[in-house]
Amino acid sequence: MNDRTPGVGTARQAPAELLQRLAQRFGESLSTARAVCEQHGRDESPFDVPPPSAVVFCRSTEDVADAVRLCAAFATPVIAFGAGSSLEGQLLAVQGGVSLDLTPMNRVLEVVAEDMLATVQAGVTRLQLNEELRHSGLFFAIDPGADATLGGMTATRASGTNAVRYGTMRENVLALTVVLADGSVVRTGTRARKSSAGYDLTRLFVGSEGTLGIITEVTVRLQPQPQAVAAAVCSFPDVARAVGCTIEMIQSALPIARCELMDANAVRAVNAHDHLGLPEQPLLLMEFHGSPAGVREQAEAAQQIAGEHGGSDFAWADTPEERGRLWKARHHAYLSALQTRPGCRCVTTDTCVPISRLAESIHDTVLEADAAGLPYFVVGHVGDGNFHVGYLIDPLQPAERELAETLNASLVRRALRLGGTCSGEHGVGLHKQQFLLEEAGEQAIGLMRALKRTLDPAGILNPGKIFS
Amino acid sequence: MNDRTPGVGTARQAPAELLQRLAQRFGESLSTARAVCEQHGRDESPFDVPPPSAVVFCRSTEDVADAVRLCAAFATPVIAFGAGSSLEGQLLAVQGGVSLDLTPMNRVLEVVAEDMLATVQAGVTRLQLNEELRHSGLFFAIDPGADATLGGMTATRASGTNAVRYGTMRENVLALTVVLADGSVVRTGTRARKSSAGYDLTRLFVGSEGTLGIITEVTVRLQPQPQAVAAAVCSFPDVARAVGCTIEMIQSALPIARCELMDANAVRAVNAHDHLGLPEQPLLLMEFHGSPAGVREQAEAAQQIAGEHGGSDFAWADTPEERGRLWKARHHAYLSALQTRPGCRCVTTDTCVPISRLAESIHDTVLEADAAGLPYFVVGHVGDGNFHVGYLIDPLQPAERELAETLNASLVRRALRLGGTCSGEHGVGLHKQQFLLEEAGEQAIGLMRALKRTLDPAGILNPGKIFS
Repeated sequence: MNDRTPGVGTARQAPAELLQRLAQRFGESLSTARAVCEQHGRDESPFDVPPPSAVVFCRSTEDVADAVRLCAAFATPVIAFGAGSSLEGQLLAVQGGVSLDLTPMNRVLEVVAEDMLATVQAGVTRLQLNEELRHSGLFFAIDPGADATLGGMTATRASGTNAVRYGTMRENVLALTVVLADGSVVRTGTRARKSSAGYDLTRLFVGSEGTLGIITEVTVRLQPQPQAVAAAVCSFPDVARAVGCTIEMIQSALPIARCELMDANAVRAVNAHDHLGLPEQPLLLMEFHGSPAGVREQAEAAQQIAGEHGGSDFAWADTPEERGRLWKARHHAYLSALQTRPGCRCVTTDTCVPISRLAESIHDTVLEADAAGLPYFVVGHVGDGNFHVGYLIDPLQPAERELAETLNASLVRRALRLGGTCSGEHGVGLHKQQFLLEEAGEQAIGLMRALKRTLDPAGILNPGKIFS
Repeated sequence: MNDRTPGVGTARQAPAELLQRLAQRFGESLSTARAVCEQHGRDESPFDVPPPSAVVFCRSTEDVADAVRLCAAFATPVIAFGAGSSLEGQLLAVQGGVSLDLTPMNRVLEVVAEDMLATVQAGVTRLQLNEELRHSGLFFAIDPGADATLGGMTATRASGTNAVRYGTMRENVLALTVVLADGSVVRTGTRARKSSAGYDLTRLFVGSEGTLGIITEVTVRLQPQPQAVAAAVCSFPDVARAVGCTIEMIQSALPIARCELMDANAVRAVNAHDHLGLPEQPLLLMEFHGSPAGVREQAEAAQQIAGEHGGSDFAWADTPEERGRLWKARHHAYLSALQTRPGCRCVTTDTCVPISRLAESIHDTVLEADAAGLPYFVVGHVGDGNFHVGYLIDPLQPAERELAETLNASLVRRALRLGGTCSGEHGVGLHKQQFLLEEAGEQAIGLMRALKRTLDPAGILNPGKIFS
């Protein structure tokens, strides 16, 4: 364990009697095998923390409720586990405890095409849901890079490349089933598109990172598959001009569906990984949704704006296959970049700033990264003002991690000065606690702590996350 | 006081010493004049409740904080007051106390055009904000019928005719300043369009009806004024076909900006009030936003769908003035209907159902209303599945009120059976408490109560609302 890891308490072993009771209840769905526990004690964050004492593979809300009830009786932490793709240490057992693996909860419970909604168990992944929707004329819009579970995406208030047009999990979750700290089960929300009936319990759990309850079912909004889709790549002489183009497109109300920045380093990485042959300079990867005429009109307006900012003629991905290849490459940027430095780990940043401050935010960030000399890449959901720098560090060289963290701190504090947030879509976890405090202030953090104490008085739900 | 009014406790008089201390602090901004108190003890709901003991006219967050602190010291309820247009009894002093009139807090603090956001004091009204935005190329999209304050709209999670395209206050509030029960001040949110930094305190306060804190400043998203706008009226032989047309437009992903239903009664009322000469049969009032070509395309698609449902040829409102006249008339439907029965009051319903269940929901409602023989009208934000029936009752005839409440109860329970909500946009207040319980269930209400106790342990913030 790194002693700089925040939120780490005494990583207690779960009591033997609890493990015995869990074994009685769950049989072979309980594992204490070292390899299994270790697999559930790592995510994509660079933190190094002892694994949980046991893993329960849950198949139903009742399984989760029973597991929570047993753990509560022994004051033992419970941590929900989905795809394991969280980036800020959300699922690490910093105070020991039991991991509840929800991936066996992988059933799409209902698709109501005429109301454009679906209810899924928490372990369903976004690709799985979209595969099931393939012939429905609908799709689920939120797409973080990883094939995350919808439970995990809800818990971290995730978004992705489509958020500029379709919103984030905040806007796309209609209703939830949640297991509370005492093992009771609460339903929030209805199927209505809007409601002003009482406190917004749904939004209380969206983004709570497993610290207020364990999400077991999610009802999400679906979007109609657009009549026409066009994707284009546009290269720019520098990042600043690509960002300037984005800002102007957003301010002119162009209803762009996706607008992704990749810097030259990111392009080089995906070229190497996916053999794309893209020009190795900063680019925007765009997608337009609408009627055939509407898409044509949007594309023309976008090309016009891009040209004024020094952008190249658009290179079009005309077929679904070509588009799929491009977006897959974009989603692979993180993994592709990791492969450019064998054995490295990635410290990923995740600020979001008001769109008018995006250019200076990225510009100053790139200057600092260049001066520092660490390998890095930049990708961004720039239509939202959200971008990620990935610093590729050698985990065996503590100085590199420290340097990356210093760069991240500078970047986050710049975002806060500009009216932005320390986390656009990855959440707080272990990594952003100090920044959250700086962003929200003592008063707001005090309120968050009070909510936590109310919903989880014994502090067994993913303790040590968001705030310690 | 009607003994059927829910949430009514002992309407204590505020202690004389508190009034003295408030007078010292606020001077002429404190009023205990009977007429002033009575004006602050009524909203558009039909409840009859004694007025507050005093009214403090607040000019700043500090004023609100000081008033709350003083009231807290005397365990006296505080109730925020904006335009007084709430419909469910939200601002009635059911347990006595002091009304904080926030209408003097009417400054637009900042418009950041390039980030499409504005920060306003809570007493700014939606028309005032849009007037200030007139030359900015932007507008604020949320438009409940009344010229409500943005504080009140936030507190009730209001929406209106544009929600089908632009969302509700839930989606359009970025950040808040809130005075808590102890007089401390908390800021929630940032200027970033999205964030996953900690619990969603903003959404906790949106829709909390003054029971968790008093909202004093609101940062909202603005929308670009569309390049082109077209409004059209389409008459239908019956309500069912107007609704069928709406459902098909939504399901075919037509990005309609407004889609309002008025039944023949509502049309007759606005014709009489605004001299519109509309055909007195059910109609849809629609608006399309986009590029000139996009608007043309949407309008053609809508006309095609409407025709298939027996709709008339669209009558176009081509100029901003004609459009303004139409929408003003739509917003006047409530007041116009009141004038069709002199001396009446209106019991307004506010359910929202999944769009696929809207036709049966309205159909059965209309059958029941016709059978009951009370005058009524129907208007609806039908693109969202949200509609209102207004029953026009003689306040001197208790049987009429009872009949209207019976009809409302039947309507709400139907909505709940169909997967909908008891309140689409008016909130819970005094009126929907039993229905909220039926909708959310004991478990969820227990959680809401726990949140209330955490944020307001002494129960001084608008007590007796949402749950008693």
